[in-house]
Amino acid sequence: MVGRFRANIQLGRGALPLSAVRTNSEDSCPMNPRINDALPSWKDGEAKYAISDFVARVGSEDSPDFVPPPERIAVFDNDGTLWSEQPFYFQGLFIFERVRALAGQHPEWKTTQPFQAALERDWNTLGEFGDKGLLELAMATHAGMSTAHFAEIVNAWLNEARHPQLQRRYTELVFQPMLELLDYLRANAFKTFIVSGGGIEFIRTFSERVYGVPPEQVIGSSIVTKLETLEGCPVLIRQPQLNFLDDREGKPVAINQHIGRRPIAAFGNSDGDLQMLEWVTAGSGARLGLLLHHDDAEREFAYDSHSAAGQLGRALEQAPARGWTVVSMQRDFERIYPLQPDAVS
Amino acid sequence: MVGRFRANIQLGRGALPLSAVRTNSEDSCPMNPRINDALPSWKDGEAKYAISDFVARVGSEDSPDFVPPPERIAVFDNDGTLWSEQPFYFQGLFIFERVRALAGQHPEWKTTQPFQAALERDWNTLGEFGDKGLLELAMATHAGMSTAHFAEIVNAWLNEARHPQLQRRYTELVFQPMLELLDYLRANAFKTFIVSGGGIEFIRTFSERVYGVPPEQVIGSSIVTKLETLEGCPVLIRQPQLNFLDDREGKPVAINQHIGRRPIAAFGNSDGDLQMLEWVTAGSGARLGLLLHHDDAEREFAYDSHSAAGQLGRALEQAPARGWTVVSMQRDFERIYPLQPDAVS
Repeated sequence: MVGRFRANIQLGRGALPLSAVRTNSEDSCPMNPRINDALPSWKDGEAKYAISDFVARVGSEDSPDFVPPPERIAVFDNDGTLWSEQPFYFQGLFIFERVRALAGQHPEWKTTQPFQAALERDWNTLGEFGDKGLLELAMATHAGMSTAHFAEIVNAWLNEARHPQLQRRYTELVFQPMLELLDYLRANAFKTFIVSGGGIEFIRTFSERVYGVPPEQVIGSSIVTKLETLEGCPVLIRQPQLNFLDDREGKPVAINQHIGRRPIAAFGNSDGDLQMLEWVTAGSGARLGLLLHHDDAEREFAYDSHSAAGQLGRALEQAPARGWTVVSMQRDFERIYPLQPDAVS
Repeated sequence: MVGRFRANIQLGRGALPLSAVRTNSEDSCPMNPRINDALPSWKDGEAKYAISDFVARVGSEDSPDFVPPPERIAVFDNDGTLWSEQPFYFQGLFIFERVRALAGQHPEWKTTQPFQAALERDWNTLGEFGDKGLLELAMATHAGMSTAHFAEIVNAWLNEARHPQLQRRYTELVFQPMLELLDYLRANAFKTFIVSGGGIEFIRTFSERVYGVPPEQVIGSSIVTKLETLEGCPVLIRQPQLNFLDDREGKPVAINQHIGRRPIAAFGNSDGDLQMLEWVTAGSGARLGLLLHHDDAEREFAYDSHSAAGQLGRALEQAPARGWTVVSMQRDFERIYPLQPDAVS
């Protein structure tokens, strides 16, 4: 597999691997560069060919790479892979908003870090606290309520909040080419899962409506929940305690825990996805590993390792040797965001 | 809902609720008691009517109880609900077998409890150690190997082992009426999940082949796994540490973690399923809670609270008030086990 993808890359951007042509309908012209109308927001190029070629090979019963439908599992990171993550992870912005909303009940936060930094929007100091600081803020603001109540708070925020620079709803800052890719894979009998370092219950509030990914196919970080009885009714109450951090080494662990088999395709954009990509593409048979490269400062954001969110360094270095497809948002994306506004949930 | 099911029960076994008749095809005779050919191993009676009635109501767009397909989630306990659990949980028998297989490497087990009891097949002493003892044996014998290697060991055992009294493979001791029920629900756009106190990776080795439930729809108890690199390849290694005990209060927690929404139907057989049944049937809209009662000493086993596995007491007491359907294996099951032997995996 790795060799095969490398060979495709060596063909250069003009050459179209024959196997990719097979994704055309019977009567289409092999010289026509638009090989896959299911992905209209992808420019023709290596990335689109690699995707079409992979889907054609695993989907054809005549192919040596055929994969039975139940094993066609594809996993997608969320932040930076399905939607933007600048100036910071969107759930991070939600957390800061919650800190501000709850500050009246916690006067001590004004002089306690990392709460003080969140209240003062002091991103530099917050950055110094790293993931640990963000987790502390999340524990303090995402717990002590039922799972249903938490979902209501998230939904209200997603409806009201607007991105500070782009002035759109966060759920409108999803990548149109990735929405098409999700649909294209599902049309080819893939089951699509989200595997995110973000909160599992945060993402589930919008994943079905926005991505077509039902809650049972969302994997993410989580806090402990506990069954309690309130007014005679059983409810799940969120506890201020980390249950699982679904990032880096945690991603293969969580995929195995939730899905129970190794996916055949993985899509990510940062070093947090490195272990997931390694584990998925180390499996036998046809595999697709893909890294989204944020290199479009004009239409979205350009950042590699110089970012508070979604640092990309080691994974990008390893991509050629491991046969991972690198998607340049500048070069490969015809459009970044959907034209349609997101329907209010 | 609760009131409605109670009303059905009060009609008595001879009376057929009109809503159940609607599950017939248009030209069938309402006096014909065979209302649902999808469940041929279920005898006609309240339990079968309750199931058919529920499925018809949530599946009909004209019904006030209509549930959109994505929300038609049904959860099934495994031990005692989908297969037998006497003389002891089948995975327990596997654990004892593993203790014996590994005893040569652990001479100290001969004089250390609970290992000694497992080696001497001293069920009474083992019973005194309870769940904690069983977990200790599982940790010692189910860890220190890759997830793939563990699956191989389980598969080999499932192929070779035979039930001590019934002389059949354990995978042949699944309940034919429950297999039909799983199929019937799936044919009506339900997604079926297993939610077991047993090991998630143990059940996944046979759930797809035997129950038609893919690994990603199996929820169970688990031990910690860790991503390691062996000979340059990433592998998941099982650690001798409990990750999650999916029993009692744990079942609603695990369902929420894996599925992210409250199922509308739950099937169990013991007090370990009580909280799951309570939580599922406490939701709004149409709900089905069902308890399988092991009361057939002749064809299977008869036990309530007097059992080393699957004690049933409180849940059975609560069933009438909560509107749960109680299935008598003696009265409601036309057949217990499938006629066909299980294909060797």
